[in-house]
Amino acid sequence: MKDTICAPATPASPSAIGVIRMSGDKVLEITKEVFRLLNGKKEDIKHAIHPKVRVGYIMDRNKKIIDQVVCTIFFAPRSYTGEDIVEISHHGSPFVQQQILQLLIENGARLAKNGEFSQRAFLNGKMNLSQTEAVADLIQSRSAIAHELAIQQIKGGYQKTLSILRKDLLDFLSLLEIELDFSEEDLEFAQREKLLESIEKIDTTISKLVNSFSAGNAFKNGIPIAIIGKPNAGKSTLFNAILNDERAIVSTIAGTTRDTIEESLTLHGIEFRFIDTAGVRKSSDPIEAEGIRRSFKSIEESNIIIYVVDVNEMLPSEAQFDLIEIDKQISLEGKKIVIVANKFNEEDLLEKEIMGWNEIGAVKAVAKERIGIDEIIERIIKIVAIDLVNNDVLTTNARHWEAMKKAGEALKTAKENIRNQMPTDIIASDIRESLHYLGEITGEVTTDELLSNIFSKFCIGK
Amino acid sequence: MKDTICAPATPASPSAIGVIRMSGDKVLEITKEVFRLLNGKKEDIKHAIHPKVRVGYIMDRNKKIIDQVVCTIFFAPRSYTGEDIVEISHHGSPFVQQQILQLLIENGARLAKNGEFSQRAFLNGKMNLSQTEAVADLIQSRSAIAHELAIQQIKGGYQKTLSILRKDLLDFLSLLEIELDFSEEDLEFAQREKLLESIEKIDTTISKLVNSFSAGNAFKNGIPIAIIGKPNAGKSTLFNAILNDERAIVSTIAGTTRDTIEESLTLHGIEFRFIDTAGVRKSSDPIEAEGIRRSFKSIEESNIIIYVVDVNEMLPSEAQFDLIEIDKQISLEGKKIVIVANKFNEEDLLEKEIMGWNEIGAVKAVAKERIGIDEIIERIIKIVAIDLVNNDVLTTNARHWEAMKKAGEALKTAKENIRNQMPTDIIASDIRESLHYLGEITGEVTTDELLSNIFSKFCIGK
Repeated sequence: MKDTICAPATPASPSAIGVIRMSGDKVLEITKEVFRLLNGKKEDIKHAIHPKVRVGYIMDRNKKIIDQVVCTIFFAPRSYTGEDIVEISHHGSPFVQQQILQLLIENGARLAKNGEFSQRAFLNGKMNLSQTEAVADLIQSRSAIAHELAIQQIKGGYQKTLSILRKDLLDFLSLLEIELDFSEEDLEFAQREKLLESIEKIDTTISKLVNSFSAGNAFKNGIPIAIIGKPNAGKSTLFNAILNDERAIVSTIAGTTRDTIEESLTLHGIEFRFIDTAGVRKSSDPIEAEGIRRSFKSIEESNIIIYVVDVNEMLPSEAQFDLIEIDKQISLEGKKIVIVANKFNEEDLLEKEIMGWNEIGAVKAVAKERIGIDEIIERIIKIVAIDLVNNDVLTTNARHWEAMKKAGEALKTAKENIRNQMPTDIIASDIRESLHYLGEITGEVTTDELLSNIFSKFCIGK
Repeated sequence: MKDTICAPATPASPSAIGVIRMSGDKVLEITKEVFRLLNGKKEDIKHAIHPKVRVGYIMDRNKKIIDQVVCTIFFAPRSYTGEDIVEISHHGSPFVQQQILQLLIENGARLAKNGEFSQRAFLNGKMNLSQTEAVADLIQSRSAIAHELAIQQIKGGYQKTLSILRKDLLDFLSLLEIELDFSEEDLEFAQREKLLESIEKIDTTISKLVNSFSAGNAFKNGIPIAIIGKPNAGKSTLFNAILNDERAIVSTIAGTTRDTIEESLTLHGIEFRFIDTAGVRKSSDPIEAEGIRRSFKSIEESNIIIYVVDVNEMLPSEAQFDLIEIDKQISLEGKKIVIVANKFNEEDLLEKEIMGWNEIGAVKAVAKERIGIDEIIERIIKIVAIDLVNNDVLTTNARHWEAMKKAGEALKTAKENIRNQMPTDIIASDIRESLHYLGEITGEVTTDELLSNIFSKFCIGK
């Protein structure tokens, strides 16, 4: 278990500095072998000062210098993994990186698997499972909000909520277990009414955490916003106006088909993924039909929809009717819709029409002239802010979400069984199942498969 | 001069660890401001222990945690730049990197220019100019030989050779200056014959260093080898056979035209750039003519040429005649030519022909079946090995090469002037000019323009 692992901790491209990490039982021994002080001498690494920093050379067996480096040694258990760790800070050449790793391997280390350092940190009790996962999230974070969610989780925010849930469930279970101990006497220590009440309370918290995933996941990976509407309503013009106005484009994701283009944009520290869709209508042309199918998919995954209308082509009532038509094809239930009345020119429109657009809450815009863009963005931020206010703790991880859902389902079964006056041991078993799934999130319950599944998604050197 | 600079020292892509560097007068002050120990407290950084390592948090003004980090502080003058340096090792998220840099800048640091850390190292006397340039070479090195040349130079290998040259020239100059001091007495302290002799010796060394550049540069950037020959001789088949046989392809460089393809391959620790050229012949088709022009360019920059012949189409004598024809169009002087007698089948050929190919030293090959490839590679390695043996110190840097050439030219003028019995002060001035150019290499003589020119080519954080 404690064999010695090594890996690059920085990307393999030329840069000022590169870092290689090594952790395990033989770290001090191997370091002594490959590292020389500036005067060319080997050093016996004593546990005196922690952490220990030394400037010197990495040399191969033939005393050929590979690089001048800084070695930082963290002694067990005061390290990331809880084992002895050395971090070798070398000149950032991929060739040098490769040479040093090869030398470490020749001296008895082996190349670490993805996430193996974090896996050891978890197994050695340095971090719980959801904390190590938050470290991976932190590394991938691209916006202030994703960053904050990861930092919160590393500090144990999610963990605290779970601890309270687990404690409540354990209290509940112990009541049931007392009953089981005295089962021959057919006593009912726990009043069924009160049980139901407290289980309901726990279930509410779990449901809230389950439901927060769609927001949490969106905050982490970017909130998808589909821009829909009839052809020539000005969807692409609006899409470009939103993106150009801010110039804070994070990345461009090539569309999977010619007709769906996606761009990331960070607004107020939150990452959004704006998706320009093909027009939504029935079509017999197979290529267009595929485009429409893709648009539906974008709508499905978006919690926020921008619906663009050319006010010269449609009346407010027609726009509403069109949305109902779309809803028949792809459910818009629960989605926040921002209606944009595009190509809006007060002089050209009847007063009744202007009133109509106001009444359905449309944003009046002229995308081509960037009029109304600020208001659209303001609306979006408001929608998102409500999500943030409603959830003090968010589920951001798909694995946690699934485990949480299963914990909730077990509770629902328990409720059902209480209502049906099923025997105590059956109810106790439901509660244990629920606890099992909660334990999977923080790592109190683990299997090898679960662990390798989690850590294989980490980057190397982490 | 000593304002405080900061920069990322690792690439901005997600990885286990990222490093940010800060150097200058305010390093300790800024670090105290942004860094908190794990217990949340600020720390007064004293110069007690060097280097000092601390685990803790980077926090903004509102005490919001940006990341958990390891800070390593190197105190002036015992650092890379000779100033106080802090290296902040953070989680390798580009977002976190950006946030920390922003915070350092808010607290009084400024973003470093490319190579500014190394420039300070040079200005503070921590390294000479050619050593700092070797650090940049080391970072870019892609092969064992390029790596070794850079390490040699960092350790001062090139510097030593230059010191000897400078000393000899200075000795020479002082003789001339004694003469000048006593010029009224019209004495000749330095015998002109002896002067010429010693100047000749110095010039030989300089010429050797100038000429070593073509080898040194090739070792650093990959040795170009053009594969030439008539259309259908089997050039591309040979090109693929050489590359596939080894499977050690380093990179693919897209051809500048459809007709010139280049691939890098590392053999025995040396990087080669094999260039598959268009057939070399006269053509009136403008597109083909352009292809041929590109082939000529490849031949021009290659010291090694692989000339491929289809033995079924040409006799050995015809092949030699063809090479003479090519030489008329593009000089092959000084180039090492490996003749490959391709599609060689002993049974099909007359004994006289077989003898003929042996006599002109051709490698017998069947590229399609990968016969003869090993021998071709062996020949190439031998050619390169001779270059290595002939040069104990190589000029690898174009800037050094130019300065060295100018130093040599000044010496040649000096020789000329001695022979023409010109006055002593003119000869002394030639020698001073030569010394000036040698001084430019190591940085004993510098201008702001020269420095900014050198360091702007470095990567950021270095």
